[in-house]
Amino acid sequence: MYGLIGKMIAAPGKRDELIAIMLESVSAMPGCLSYVVARDPANADWLWITEVWDSEASHKASLSLPAVQQAIARAKPIIAGFGDYTVTEPVGGHGLG
Amino acid sequence: MYGLIGKMIAAPGKRDELIAIMLESVSAMPGCLSYVVARDPANADWLWITEVWDSEASHKASLSLPAVQQAIARAKPIIAGFGDYTVTEPVGGHGLG
Repeated sequence: MYGLIGKMIAAPGKRDELIAIMLESVSAMPGCLSYVVARDPANADWLWITEVWDSEASHKASLSLPAVQQAIARAKPIIAGFGDYTVTEPVGGHGLG
Repeated sequence: MYGLIGKMIAAPGKRDELIAIMLESVSAMPGCLSYVVARDPANADWLWITEVWDSEASHKASLSLPAVQQAIARAKPIIAGFGDYTVTEPVGGHGLG
């Protein structure tokens, strides 16, 4: 499996709008086993995204899905930046399906 | 919802043993919506744990479950340390159930 842990920084005051855009396109991505969008409670503009895919190829392919392309285009203007991201190799757990 | 993103460092050569212990007790934890154990591909002793709970209270209560207590006792001798951990406020996604 292929995993990602990353921080995204919304433009000031735009985090909830960004969350709504991201959540719209997460349900129908082939090979996506887990995709969690979370606020950072200590930083008003930060979001944490944790993802698990059945393969890196599935993740890469998802970026070309029309729904994801549209979400990226809508989100871009209200993303102020990205923090570091970590690539992981998920081995198991609960909620992977 | 209540989320955690954390890094754990296994004693040298003990990561897979640690993973096995952790995965044994993740399936029956009330209020656990997602619990993913992942290797860090770039660091042989590092593990990443990402969790989502329906509440902070559920997470706290899980630490007293007999299965979790036993897992902690078995894991302790082969944990070399912990990296920073991040508390998050998950708002939605895929694989939360």
